[in-house]
Amino acid sequence: MIKERIDALRRLMAEWGWDAAVTVGEDPHNSEYTPLRWCQRQFISGFAGSAGVVVITKDHAGLWTDSRYWIQAVHELEGSGIELHKMVSIEDKDWIRWIADSVPQDGKVGIDGLCMSMGEALQLENAVAFKGASVVSKPDYLEALWPDRPLLPQGAVRLHEDRYAGRSRIEKLEWLRSELSGLGCHYMFLNCLDQIAWLLNIRSNDVEYCPFVISFALVCPDSVELFAETSKFRANVLSELKKANIRVHPYGEVGGYIGSLKADGKILIDSGSLNYETGKAIAEKFGRENIVEECSPVDLAKAVKNEVEIEGFRKAYIQDGIVQTRFFMWLEESLADGKRITESDASDKLHDLRTAMPDFLDESFETISAYGQNAALPHYSTVRGQDAVLEPHGLYLNDSGAHYSYGTTDITRTVPLGPLTDLEREDYTLDMMAMIDLAMAVFPEGTPGCRIDAIARRPLWQAMRNFGHGTGHGVGNVLSVHEGPQSIRQNLKDQPLLPGMITSDEPGIYREGFHGIRHENMILCTGKGGNEFGRWICFETLTRTYLDTAPLLISLMDCREIEWLNDFNETVYCEISPYLEEEEKVWLRKKTLPLEF
Amino acid sequence: MIKERIDALRRLMAEWGWDAAVTVGEDPHNSEYTPLRWCQRQFISGFAGSAGVVVITKDHAGLWTDSRYWIQAVHELEGSGIELHKMVSIEDKDWIRWIADSVPQDGKVGIDGLCMSMGEALQLENAVAFKGASVVSKPDYLEALWPDRPLLPQGAVRLHEDRYAGRSRIEKLEWLRSELSGLGCHYMFLNCLDQIAWLLNIRSNDVEYCPFVISFALVCPDSVELFAETSKFRANVLSELKKANIRVHPYGEVGGYIGSLKADGKILIDSGSLNYETGKAIAEKFGRENIVEECSPVDLAKAVKNEVEIEGFRKAYIQDGIVQTRFFMWLEESLADGKRITESDASDKLHDLRTAMPDFLDESFETISAYGQNAALPHYSTVRGQDAVLEPHGLYLNDSGAHYSYGTTDITRTVPLGPLTDLEREDYTLDMMAMIDLAMAVFPEGTPGCRIDAIARRPLWQAMRNFGHGTGHGVGNVLSVHEGPQSIRQNLKDQPLLPGMITSDEPGIYREGFHGIRHENMILCTGKGGNEFGRWICFETLTRTYLDTAPLLISLMDCREIEWLNDFNETVYCEISPYLEEEEKVWLRKKTLPLEF
Repeated sequence: MIKERIDALRRLMAEWGWDAAVTVGEDPHNSEYTPLRWCQRQFISGFAGSAGVVVITKDHAGLWTDSRYWIQAVHELEGSGIELHKMVSIEDKDWIRWIADSVPQDGKVGIDGLCMSMGEALQLENAVAFKGASVVSKPDYLEALWPDRPLLPQGAVRLHEDRYAGRSRIEKLEWLRSELSGLGCHYMFLNCLDQIAWLLNIRSNDVEYCPFVISFALVCPDSVELFAETSKFRANVLSELKKANIRVHPYGEVGGYIGSLKADGKILIDSGSLNYETGKAIAEKFGRENIVEECSPVDLAKAVKNEVEIEGFRKAYIQDGIVQTRFFMWLEESLADGKRITESDASDKLHDLRTAMPDFLDESFETISAYGQNAALPHYSTVRGQDAVLEPHGLYLNDSGAHYSYGTTDITRTVPLGPLTDLEREDYTLDMMAMIDLAMAVFPEGTPGCRIDAIARRPLWQAMRNFGHGTGHGVGNVLSVHEGPQSIRQNLKDQPLLPGMITSDEPGIYREGFHGIRHENMILCTGKGGNEFGRWICFETLTRTYLDTAPLLISLMDCREIEWLNDFNETVYCEISPYLEEEEKVWLRKKTLPLEF
Repeated sequence: MIKERIDALRRLMAEWGWDAAVTVGEDPHNSEYTPLRWCQRQFISGFAGSAGVVVITKDHAGLWTDSRYWIQAVHELEGSGIELHKMVSIEDKDWIRWIADSVPQDGKVGIDGLCMSMGEALQLENAVAFKGASVVSKPDYLEALWPDRPLLPQGAVRLHEDRYAGRSRIEKLEWLRSELSGLGCHYMFLNCLDQIAWLLNIRSNDVEYCPFVISFALVCPDSVELFAETSKFRANVLSELKKANIRVHPYGEVGGYIGSLKADGKILIDSGSLNYETGKAIAEKFGRENIVEECSPVDLAKAVKNEVEIEGFRKAYIQDGIVQTRFFMWLEESLADGKRITESDASDKLHDLRTAMPDFLDESFETISAYGQNAALPHYSTVRGQDAVLEPHGLYLNDSGAHYSYGTTDITRTVPLGPLTDLEREDYTLDMMAMIDLAMAVFPEGTPGCRIDAIARRPLWQAMRNFGHGTGHGVGNVLSVHEGPQSIRQNLKDQPLLPGMITSDEPGIYREGFHGIRHENMILCTGKGGNEFGRWICFETLTRTYLDTAPLLISLMDCREIEWLNDFNETVYCEISPYLEEEEKVWLRKKTLPLEF
C-alpha cells in the first residue's frame, strides 16, 4: 500500500516538475500531538513515530529519524522501499543536507508549507539555493492520494467560564492589545492552539487529550478574526464571542482573509511556531519591515496562573487524591485477595474511578500503567493482551492525569506490591529524595529552571544514577498537560521561573530489565519575600496523593527530607480524608503515618 | 590636565575631520589586565576603573560605566568637564546608541582600531550607518598628546620548561596544525596573550600578575611568526624558538607582515577577541570567504591540564599550604601578644613568607587582606594608611595567590580572630557547606559549570543568602589566575567541565557594614568512571591550606560534609607537617583535629 502511494506521489511529482517531495509530519499549528488529519508522514510512509522527515525523489525514498524510533522504523518501513536514515538528534538537519546534495541544478523541492515551520522552510531554501534550486509550497499536496483523509473534528466549542479562567476574554484581549501597543504593533497572528484557547477562553476536543479548538486567530485593533470549522460554534457561543468582537470564519479562509485585509501598522508573529504558508501570506500583506518577531506574550501570560486558576488546580489535585487513594487501596486489596490484575486492568480501574468524579472532563494524557521491568521504559505504552500481570512483589508505576473543569493534573506514583530488592529500595529512596529536594528548593528571583535542575538530580548523581528526561514541565490549565515557556531540565534556557507558574517535579530512575521508578508531584512557583540578598522564590506542592513510605531506606535521607515527607502525608490525610468512606480513611491513615527518625 | 588633553584632542579631531572620538580602554589583546601603555581611557579621562568607554565630541565629553564604578567615577571625573553616563550593565551599548543619536549626517566617528574588538567596531559601524556616518580607525591616535606614554615592557622572555609544561612547543604546534587541518585551515592568528604563552611555552613579566609576553602570533603551515619587542629575546631563547621554526618580528610590524604575506588557504581567527585593525588586515589579505571564525582550540587545550601540569599544581599548593600555616600561626600569636597589626602588615608578612619559598616567581594577583566589614567588599583593595587594624574578635579574610615555576595558586581563607557573633558563625558555616558541597559533587560527563553552580549555592539559598560573583573560575598554569573557557557561575554557558580542568570553588557571603566570608579551594575536575547511567565526573581538591573548624555550627551540617572536612584537614596535616618546624607542626595539629559528630 505504501509502495503504491509513493508511486502515485511520484507521478504527481513528475506532473508538477518536483525533484523531491518533503513530508515533515507536523500540523499547521506546531502542535505536540498531531491531529489525525495531519498525520501525513504516517500516511506516506507507514511510520507511526512522532518525529521524523520523509523525503521522496524520483529514485529514492527515505525516512530520517532519531534513535528513539530506529527499532520501530525498521519494523514499520519493512517492504515499503523506504530507507531509514539514522539521525543522532531530532534537532539535526541531515535531511536538508541530503536534499542539498542530491537535488539537481535548478531543481524544485516540494513541501506542504502549511505543515512546515517558517524557520525550517527557510533553512531548506538556503541550503538548495547554491544549486539554483527552489522550494515550492503546495498545501495539502498529499490530499489527492488520500480519499479518506480525516476531516477537521466537528465537536462543539464550549466556553471556558470566567469562574474557572479567572480573567474574561475581554480582559485578556485588553491586556494583549496593551502589550502589542508596547511593542509598537497593531495586530497579532496566533497559530498555537493552546494560546488561542487560553486567550479566547474557548475549549473543544479537537486534539486527543488536549481540549483545543483547531483554529488560527488574528487579533486586530478592534476585533478578533477566528478561523475554525464554523459548524462547531452554537449560537450561544457565537453570541458570547461577539461580545468581545470575536468573529468566526471558515478555517480554510485564513490565507485569503489575510490577503484581502486592509491593514496598516505592524504585526506580531511568533516566528518559532508559525507555518511557512501563513507566514508568507502575512509577509506579503504587511511587508517584511512591519513584521515583529518576538516570543508570544500570550505564551508567558498563560503559564503564569492567576489566583482563580491556582484554586482550580488545588481542587483538581484533591479530586485526584481521592481517586488515587481509592485506586491504590483497590490495588492492594485485590492483590491480597489473590485476584489476577493486568496493567490494563489497573488502567481501566483508575479510569473508572476518575470518570466517576464530578467535573471530570477527560484524561490529560494516556495513562502509563507499568509493572516491574516495563516501568523501566519512561514512555511505556500498555497494549492490552501483551501487558504484564501484576505480581505481589516489586514495584508498580502509574503516571496519569485528568482535566477537570477547573484544572489539570499529572501524577506519578510508584508503589510496592510486596517484597522489594535492596536495589529497588535504594533507587526508590534516592528518587524520593530528589523529588523532595526540588520541592524544598529556595532560589533567587530570576533563576531559570535549568539552573535548579541539578538540585533535584544531586541525590541521584552522588550515587552515580541519573535519568534521561526533563525534571519538570509546565502544565496548562485545562489545556495541554505539557506547556512552556518554563521547564526544569538540563537544556540551557533562560526563562526564569515566575510566581504563579505550575511545573511538574518528576525525577526517575530506570534500570532496563529490572525496574523503573518515578515520583511526580506538581509544584507551584511562589514568592518567598525579600531580604538584603534579594527577592526569593520557593515551591508549594499542589499534589494531594500520598507517598508510600514503606520502601524507604531512612538512613539515606536527611532529617529535613523526612520532615517534609511527614508534613506532606499529614496534609494529604487531613485534606483528603473528609471525602472518604470510613474504611478508606483508615487505610489512608495507615499509609500516611509519620516516619520516625 | 584632563581638560587640556581633551582640548588638544578636539584640535586634532578638527584636523582629522572627526565628529566623535571613542576610547574603550582595551589593549590590542583583549586582556583582563590592561598594560599601562594602553590605559588610554585613564589618560584621556582620569578615570581609573577597569571598565568604561569615553566619547569626546566637539561639545560633549562623556564616560559610560556601570554601577561598580559610579562612586569612583564621580570622584575621579571632578573638574574634568566629563559627564558620567550610568549604564545598568557593562554589556550594554548605551554609548553606541548615544553616538548614533548625536553624530551628524555623513559624520565621522574615530576609534583606535587596535584597541577595540572587531565585534564592537562593527556594532558601531552598523549603528551610525543610517546617517551615512562612518567609523574611521586610527591606531594610537592619542599618542601625539602623550609624550611620556609607557613603552612596551623590556623584560626578558624566558622559556617555560618542558618539565613544567608537560608538552613541548613542538608537540603543541604539531597538535594545533592537525586541529587546523581538521577545520580546513592552513593558518591561525593568535592575539590572546595567555594562548600565545601557553602554545609557545614562553613567559615574561609584561603584564602585572600575568607572566605574558605582549605579542601576536601567526601560525603558518611551516613556521610561526611571532610579533613582539625583539630586544626581549636573548640568543639562547631565539635559538630554542628557532628549533620550532618560530621567528620573532618587531611588535609593530604585524599589520605590514600580514599585508605582504603570500598566503593561500583559510585562516582561523578568534573573532570574539581579535581587534578591529588586525581583523581588517587579515580580511583584506585572505578574503572574507577564507576566514574561519571559531573558538580557539588553544583556549580549550590550555584549560585541560596534563599530568605534569597537575603535578605542578599539587606542588604549588603544598608550598602555599606551608606559607599559609606559617602566616596564620604568626597572625594568631601576634594578636595574642597584643601586637598592632594592620591589613597591610598582614599582606606584607604573607608576601615575605611567600617570596622566601623556593621556585616562587610572583604573586598571581593583588592580595585581599580585609578585616571585619572591609571583607564585605568582595574586591576590597587595601590602601596603606587607610587600612584597618586587626582586633581580637570577628573575622579576617585573606585572598591571595602565587605563581611558582610549576603552578599557580589562588586561596581564600576567612579566620576568626577571637569571639564571633552568632550571625558570623552561621554565615561561616553555611559558606563552608557550600564550598564542601561543590567539592563533593558528582555529575555526568558533558555537564557545563552553570548547571552545577546551584549545588554550591543551595545551602546559602535555603537560608535566603547568596553572593554576587561566580562560584568558580579556571586557573592558568603560570598564566592568568583567571582563565576560560570553563566557569562555574550563574550565566548560562555550555562549555562542559572536562577532566583536567582546574577551577576555583569560592562561594561567599557578604553583609555590608558587618562582615564578609569566603572559603576558596582549588578543585581539579576528574573522571570517576562509568556505569549503566553513563560516565561520571567529580572533583579532587588541590588546596592544602587547613580550614578553621572553630567557628562552625555543626548542627547545620550533614555528616557527609563533616566527614569531608575531617578528611581534608587530616590530609593537609599529613602532607604539610613534614615541611614544618616542630612548633608549627604542633600548632597545625591543633587546627586540623577532627570534628566530633
